[in-house]
Amino acid sequence: MFITFEGIDCSGKSTQIDFLARRLQAQQREVLIVREPGGTEISERIRDLLLDLKHGDMDSCTELLLFSASRSQLVTERILPALRRGAIVVADRFHDSTTAYQGYGRGIPIDSIEHVHGLVTHGLLPDMSFFIDISIEESQMRRAARIAHVDRMENADTAFYQRVRDGYHQIASTSPSRFRIINGMRQPESVSEEIWGWVVSSLPPTRFEES
Amino acid sequence: MFITFEGIDCSGKSTQIDFLARRLQAQQREVLIVREPGGTEISERIRDLLLDLKHGDMDSCTELLLFSASRSQLVTERILPALRRGAIVVADRFHDSTTAYQGYGRGIPIDSIEHVHGLVTHGLLPDMSFFIDISIEESQMRRAARIAHVDRMENADTAFYQRVRDGYHQIASTSPSRFRIINGMRQPESVSEEIWGWVVSSLPPTRFEES
Repeated sequence: MFITFEGIDCSGKSTQIDFLARRLQAQQREVLIVREPGGTEISERIRDLLLDLKHGDMDSCTELLLFSASRSQLVTERILPALRRGAIVVADRFHDSTTAYQGYGRGIPIDSIEHVHGLVTHGLLPDMSFFIDISIEESQMRRAARIAHVDRMENADTAFYQRVRDGYHQIASTSPSRFRIINGMRQPESVSEEIWGWVVSSLPPTRFEES
Repeated sequence: MFITFEGIDCSGKSTQIDFLARRLQAQQREVLIVREPGGTEISERIRDLLLDLKHGDMDSCTELLLFSASRSQLVTERILPALRRGAIVVADRFHDSTTAYQGYGRGIPIDSIEHVHGLVTHGLLPDMSFFIDISIEESQMRRAARIAHVDRMENADTAFYQRVRDGYHQIASTSPSRFRIINGMRQPESVSEEIWGWVVSSLPPTRFEES
């Protein structure tokens, strides 16, 4: 089973992944958590390149292809082997992030991005994707509270994040059987309960339950 | 005017590019030579990653996407600006290398690769491409004579190079107006004469000729 978490920055993805992983592990299930970009030696080097502040002049297509290269390596080296041995894989961002950020956010045509996804994911699609939705204002407030030295986002940034959030709603609406839109403006525990409800209804039996 | 040189390793591309650039510069033309992968700060870091021997387990799609990311940055940062100011750009490998090596060589579907090209090249196609063709045996002999160490990309087998060479013939046959297949088994001076004949017939007039 392959589960992905999506949403704009500070929507609570990491917290929710921690909650979910603990509940799954309490059932003696093997859980692999992966974070994008990164997760393999090659992907970590690509991550360094992507996050390097010097590279402010990076072309949007270069950015798309670097994220995709990192993902391709992560899929073949870690995600597919884990799924084959029966582990539950939980990803903090996956291909929908690229569609939302580089497609809806930066304006690269969605159909081009989907062709790249086809190559990168080697046919793998998440079984379940959670889009944790918060407002742009909430994201800005949480970011300001978390990060010591970030001033409030400029107007241009706000417009960008608005396109990304709208993009996520678009993506979720075109894959309703895979996507759950979760209201992330509540207490983390309530969010976690809702997510657990969805996950538990789709879980395969544990070895203990089978025997 | 945008000219690309293609062919398997040690086919004489660099030597021929030197010859051509000198002849063009003798006519007071601005020439920009670019080498793939590389040519910008970001692209050089991608090149290091691609050629690193430790990464023997790099997935073919990761490789394709890294080459393409490097190219995308090179196109926007250097090639397009040079063409806009009227320079002649000469590239030591471009998108056809990816089709030949990652497509025909490693077996990634050609139509997927062409979708990625569409993204990467920002609509730019070479005006003229030279495929300098030598036999696999000649390539191996020249390589043994030249190289003390072997990097990861060159550490592939004979069957792979045969697929790449056959792939170049396929590519050239589907773009006959753009491609010239040059017999590279001759003296460099003879090869250079033939290439110059093709280039000179397509050159725009110099400023001197115009006035």
